[in-house]
Amino acid sequence: MNTYFKGTVNIYKGFEIDIEDLPESNDVFVSKMECSISDWEKNCMEVVWLTIPESKNQLICTALSYGFQFHHTEEDRLILLKKMHPDAFVIPYASHYIGVGGVVIDDQNRLLVVREFYRNGSSAHYKLPGGTLEENEHIEDAVIREVFEETGIKTVFQSLVCFRHRHHFRFGKSDIYMICLLKPLNHEIVREKEEIAEALWMDVDEYLAHDHVHALNKEIILATLKGNHLLKKDVEGYPVDQAEYEIFLP
Amino acid sequence: MNTYFKGTVNIYKGFEIDIEDLPESNDVFVSKMECSISDWEKNCMEVVWLTIPESKNQLICTALSYGFQFHHTEEDRLILLKKMHPDAFVIPYASHYIGVGGVVIDDQNRLLVVREFYRNGSSAHYKLPGGTLEENEHIEDAVIREVFEETGIKTVFQSLVCFRHRHHFRFGKSDIYMICLLKPLNHEIVREKEEIAEALWMDVDEYLAHDHVHALNKEIILATLKGNHLLKKDVEGYPVDQAEYEIFLP
Repeated sequence: MNTYFKGTVNIYKGFEIDIEDLPESNDVFVSKMECSISDWEKNCMEVVWLTIPESKNQLICTALSYGFQFHHTEEDRLILLKKMHPDAFVIPYASHYIGVGGVVIDDQNRLLVVREFYRNGSSAHYKLPGGTLEENEHIEDAVIREVFEETGIKTVFQSLVCFRHRHHFRFGKSDIYMICLLKPLNHEIVREKEEIAEALWMDVDEYLAHDHVHALNKEIILATLKGNHLLKKDVEGYPVDQAEYEIFLP
Repeated sequence: MNTYFKGTVNIYKGFEIDIEDLPESNDVFVSKMECSISDWEKNCMEVVWLTIPESKNQLICTALSYGFQFHHTEEDRLILLKKMHPDAFVIPYASHYIGVGGVVIDDQNRLLVVREFYRNGSSAHYKLPGGTLEENEHIEDAVIREVFEETGIKTVFQSLVCFRHRHHFRFGKSDIYMICLLKPLNHEIVREKEEIAEALWMDVDEYLAHDHVHALNKEIILATLKGNHLLKKDVEGYPVDQAEYEIFLP
């Protein structure tokens, strides 16, 4: 019987315990841990990574008692780590949300705007349709999807206009709000009924003068009209999978 | 004795159990949970949020047995949630890493470049100095910090040149690499010794023709020289805390 945890060593001298090698039994877990720790020390590991699936959650408390700390979760598992010395380098986890907003202007110089149902204590105001990126979704695809979901307007991506970076957003993490210029392909609005109280085409000049529009949103429209946006481009010779990468250049 | 969990209701009809109201005892936890669940159902809660500090980790298994799921972790605590119906809306967690790279060109048309120690299986190549944002750090501050740490060159922020969006990066999350134009304030390089094998000023034309430079990096330099970048700006009338927000506009 192998009394050490099986696993692999990553490029940061991190030992990743093989999830298939996690026993059901707490006693076996303890016995393997006792053997392995001195081995990790001997081999100068920086960090030990331990993934506990929900089905073996009874091991969590024991792992914590051996100095493991929380790192992140996936839906059905908890990822823990043990620093082998106090200043060991730990790969950080994701730190940001990405949101998108669409500037959609039709051939009559009217802007597609929405008003959300009152929810957050702030007064009603007209904003750009948009939302949050889904897992591994491109910015281009997200803004087209969100504009369509909220307003029923189909669009073509034109350019990235500008963005806003904000800290201490949800759960203390940061947020980037990316604004994209889109060209509409249809005109008739089909409003999403759960979150959107109102969706309409509003004359651009009226929007820029409106009392219920935030100063930032007005600045975004002025920046859109000014031009000089970032375009989505492929880079010749850059070995990218189109589903994995998107590149925005001036 | 209060037999229900104390807590607050957020704007998404999510009940957040008061962390101060978590008992040490598993029996008390079970008894409060039994009482509270029917109460949450009666009050049409969408989701129940439960934060378990590491010091009370013995409650994790019990919480999971009541249908709680992993959501995310902080250093010393695990955040769980229970959907009150299968299609309940759950606030997502952070999805992205943000990295920065600095284009630093001196008055002799030379670019500041670094070569990292061999680590990742790819061949050696000259890249831009840079790194990952720290918690709640501005992009502007991060790129200045990283360039200084890796090369000893102090800089002033000029503009945001372009960015690259990439999926399935660390732990399956996505990554945005933001490229910034910086003006150098000194010339003498002090190389960081742990990760940087070489740091030097290289003629821009030599860099653009170099065999050991990625096509994307060459495109980034061409885009920098082309102009049309996004500038960092304050928006008049936008009630921002400068430490909390940064805005990039054309």
